[in-house]
Amino acid sequence: MEGKVKMKKKSIKDVAEKAGVSPTTVSRYINNRGYISEQTKSNILKAMKALRYYPNELARSLYTSQTNLIGLIFPTTNNPFFGELIFYIEEALYKRGKKALLCNSMNELDVEKDYLNMLRSNQVDGIIVGSHNQLIADYQFPNLPIVAVDKEAGQDIPNISCENYSGGKIAVQELLRKGCKNILYLSGADKKKPDLNYREQAYIDEMKKFKKSPLIVEAPFSDSVNEKVKKIESLFYTNKNIDGIIAGDDILASMVINAANKCNIKIPEELKVIGFDGGATTLSFLPNLTTIQQPIKDIAYKAVELLIEEIESGKRIPEKVMLPVKLVQGETT
Amino acid sequence: MEGKVKMKKKSIKDVAEKAGVSPTTVSRYINNRGYISEQTKSNILKAMKALRYYPNELARSLYTSQTNLIGLIFPTTNNPFFGELIFYIEEALYKRGKKALLCNSMNELDVEKDYLNMLRSNQVDGIIVGSHNQLIADYQFPNLPIVAVDKEAGQDIPNISCENYSGGKIAVQELLRKGCKNILYLSGADKKKPDLNYREQAYIDEMKKFKKSPLIVEAPFSDSVNEKVKKIESLFYTNKNIDGIIAGDDILASMVINAANKCNIKIPEELKVIGFDGGATTLSFLPNLTTIQQPIKDIAYKAVELLIEEIESGKRIPEKVMLPVKLVQGETT
Repeated sequence: MEGKVKMKKKSIKDVAEKAGVSPTTVSRYINNRGYISEQTKSNILKAMKALRYYPNELARSLYTSQTNLIGLIFPTTNNPFFGELIFYIEEALYKRGKKALLCNSMNELDVEKDYLNMLRSNQVDGIIVGSHNQLIADYQFPNLPIVAVDKEAGQDIPNISCENYSGGKIAVQELLRKGCKNILYLSGADKKKPDLNYREQAYIDEMKKFKKSPLIVEAPFSDSVNEKVKKIESLFYTNKNIDGIIAGDDILASMVINAANKCNIKIPEELKVIGFDGGATTLSFLPNLTTIQQPIKDIAYKAVELLIEEIESGKRIPEKVMLPVKLVQGETT
Repeated sequence: MEGKVKMKKKSIKDVAEKAGVSPTTVSRYINNRGYISEQTKSNILKAMKALRYYPNELARSLYTSQTNLIGLIFPTTNNPFFGELIFYIEEALYKRGKKALLCNSMNELDVEKDYLNMLRSNQVDGIIVGSHNQLIADYQFPNLPIVAVDKEAGQDIPNISCENYSGGKIAVQELLRKGCKNILYLSGADKKKPDLNYREQAYIDEMKKFKKSPLIVEAPFSDSVNEKVKKIESLFYTNKNIDGIIAGDDILASMVINAANKCNIKIPEELKVIGFDGGATTLSFLPNLTTIQQPIKDIAYKAVELLIEEIESGKRIPEKVMLPVKLVQGETT
């Protein structure tokens, strides 16, 4: 243990002891409540300085009942879409003086339940949730402001997403315009997340409109990378006439492109591919990708705006906000 | 405002009022301190249930002086390396019953200072820092456990990183073995982050060993994507004889590959490229990339382990831990 420096975090109790007063008096001083003599104030301040005790927002929060902590429940930061979304949510919160408590649920139900309990006992001011689980009952806290991103978390819970249906429609139209005859939809959505299925629904509806039969292959979020890659490679053998693929997200699109390269299928000549999300990291890796771009920053800022409106008004705002998508014309279609 | 449901977070004060006791008594009950009559206990419990008040960890933390909150100060989650690192840090913290307060500093000094103050006033139990700023003075809190990742935050602050020097050396050797004569190092490191410069230093040392002059081009983290891309494209015009590029990280490597494709330079025939990091997202987008892989998960878990050791022992552990890197043999060299 040589070379180790003794550390001990100071508490309100240490300050009280040093100042020769009760913890309650220190707490009253910090929170500016009730009468305290000038002499006592001066003793407390001296004790705080000597101990390098910093006024504790948490202590204050017992009286204001605000902690300025916001819980974020998302599957993972290890994904370019969520990484970017969480970055902007945190940025928007920071600008409003709020801090982000990050919870990566990996879409596991138990983990998410556990987080919800932790968040409750930490008394966060609100929650922004974007995980795929449908725990509607658990999100029905009458006292807790909640905003959902790309998720239906309950009837009276506000929900922000991009125009998923419109995005799916634009994707089909882009492939048809480029001459595709046999378009497949590669779905990454869990059935638990109906919002994302609007993309798929739009594909089904558009195909029917053009008298074509929809063909959907599922490679859900919960599959491993290897499972997804295998599924995609086998596609090219079982469905030899496919000339267009709509991928449910850009990671799936990149897997399709890599699998096609491996199988010597030329993009866009023999196969056209379109993704979904269009995040900055993705387009930095794949600048030629054609994709449906979500306004990720706008979604993040809108979610924070609505949550803070809920916190400040003390009222639920059961709005459904859908922000427009944009076709990014690359070279894969 | 129609359709809005009234919400109000309950505080210890509300419970006290409903139970007809003082907030201090409620707090004593929650924290199991001092004598409280059975009748009073029963009144408080009833009030808590009626108000749906959940025992508040923050209230308890005033007595235990532990909040179980850990501050994470990193540049951004919008980057595959940090997104993955933060994912695993949060996972490791969760397993230890700790929660992650996420702070994206974007490497801005003012933002980082602001976060440090916020973290101090929120009384986090400790901090894991991986941003590039060198605020040594500000990280010298004698009372606060800190662990740095890929950053020298001060003499007595533990530091976890991969073997950056060894990684740089392996990269040069790989390119030399593949026949490169003119190897350039594309640096993404800010001069403020000396740990990353070990990669560069290894390049310089290896080049000297083989009697070659080092050639370094800088495209720091703070540059915009466009600035970086322009810098890389102009490289091919000003240094026509370059046949090998070591990129300081995989994002830079992907930019080199994209720029080469645009300029019709064949990889690996005319130009060999090797990256650094080897994260899961990156290799999903670019499965053919040759790169130096960091043990991202191990780094994350080690950082959390050391931090918790500091918290529990109340002592600084001024260790420098370096974890081994691995050459991922792709098709770009």
